[in-house]
Amino acid sequence: MRMRNKPWALDYLKTHSNLADVEMTYAGNVSDFFEDNQDLHIEVGTGMGTFITTLAKNNPDINYLGIELDKNILIRVVEKILEEDLKNVKVALLNAADLKEYFNSDEVDRVYLNFSDPWPKNRHEKRRLTYRSFLSSYKDILKQDGELHFKTDNQGLFEYSLVSMNNFGMQFKEVNLNLHLNEPDDNIRTEYEAKFSSKGNLIRRLKASF
Amino acid sequence: MRMRNKPWALDYLKTHSNLADVEMTYAGNVSDFFEDNQDLHIEVGTGMGTFITTLAKNNPDINYLGIELDKNILIRVVEKILEEDLKNVKVALLNAADLKEYFNSDEVDRVYLNFSDPWPKNRHEKRRLTYRSFLSSYKDILKQDGELHFKTDNQGLFEYSLVSMNNFGMQFKEVNLNLHLNEPDDNIRTEYEAKFSSKGNLIRRLKASF
Ligand SMILES: C[S@@+](CC[C@H](N)C(=O)[O-])C[C@H]1O[C@@H](n2cnc3c(N)ncnc32)[C@H](O)[C@@H]1O
Ligand SMILES: C[S@@+](CC[C@H](N)C(=O)[O-])C[C@H]1O[C@@H](n2cnc3c(N)ncnc32)[C@H](O)[C@@H]1O
Repeated sequence: MRMRNKPWALDYLKTHSNLADVEMTYAGNVSDFFEDNQDLHIEVGTGMGTFITTLAKNNPDINYLGIELDKNILIRVVEKILEEDLKNVKVALLNAADLKEYFNSDEVDRVYLNFSDPWPKNRHEKRRLTYRSFLSSYKDILKQDGELHFKTDNQGLFEYSLVSMNNFGMQFKEVNLNLHLNEPDDNIRTEYEAKFSSKGNLIRRLKASF
Repeated sequence: MRMRNKPWALDYLKTHSNLADVEMTYAGNVSDFFEDNQDLHIEVGTGMGTFITTLAKNNPDINYLGIELDKNILIRVVEKILEEDLKNVKVALLNAADLKEYFNSDEVDRVYLNFSDPWPKNRHEKRRLTYRSFLSSYKDILKQDGELHFKTDNQGLFEYSLVSMNNFGMQFKEVNLNLHLNEPDDNIRTEYEAKFSSKGNLIRRLKASF
């Protein structure tokens, strides 16, 4: 997802420092970011935030943090949080490569990855968010029984991720090769999910733990 | 696959005891069944045998054994072997549940499972050829670096098998969610594969080791 560059993006986010952490202010003490001390679920590459804000609305007893490296996109999430006046969802301007600097070990209860960039070329394998270096970060920050939930329509990325997660020693809980065939009541469609599903692409989902 | 019962099936197979083992004659000494002492690949649930006889023709330096519990179907495989005068492919009338009684440990170099019966009902899980008790047999009879190659068009069975094999500790080598999209040159379509592909079903393949 590429957004036109907004020169005022960083200033806007800083004005809303109660919702958006742009300077790793809460690194090492994420719970201070939230009003209530409750389970923490994060989405890595959160995009415009439909998924995470809807989850937050539906589950007030869980804290949600959207991780995104594009400040222009994060504005959209902040707008959604403000519109709905949500207390339990925040965002952080952060590269997934730095997750271990932001979170403590065993701090996160669930990690969501939705429609991550596929990086189809072999030489870009290390950039895929299901490459083993990223899996290693998720493992570190997740609690023992924490789960990774991954959705994509991209055949190559899903095939790759099944092998990568299996080879990393992760334990599969559920594989769904056509999520919209009998769409679970609690599925929340992301922006990309809505777009690619309407094109006729199959949506796949994997749930696994470390 | 259900064939009309042929009362003469067993007699026919016994007449061709050099090609078909119907009485576990070669249990414990499968290599005596073949002319040449070379790698052994087996297909469990071989059906009418297009797959295994084509492989045998293409790879004279490998021995192939087709396992099938239906004697009426096995006739078709024997006919194909005779027609093509193939020396390196045999069949055995055997239930997959008895594999460990037929083969020695570490004897088999590869196991093929093609379009195994899906047994979609939960209460029939134990009958699926990718249920853990069957995986345990494959593990036992396969050599250390031996591989299991599994193809199916059945979404539910493939999803189940990914989870079952992962949970059993198997190591995935390759997952293909649409084998016919860029069909590998060396792919051999089974009878079911040809039929279901022409209906528009996606063909999936998993390669894994223990
Ligand atoms: C294809 S979009 C998907 C957005 C959203 N999850 C959805 O499903 O609609 C991928 C998003 O991940 C973000 N992203 C890519 N790599 C990232 C990384 N290393 N760290 C954080 N975010 C990343 C991109 O900026 C983009 O917004
Ligand atoms: C759906 S057919 C597929 C046949 C063939 N592999 C193909 O792809 O065309 C499944 C075959 O497996 C055989 N089969 C099922 N359960 C078996 C078992 N426990 N042991 C041996 N063969 C079995 C059936 O008799 C049947 O021929």
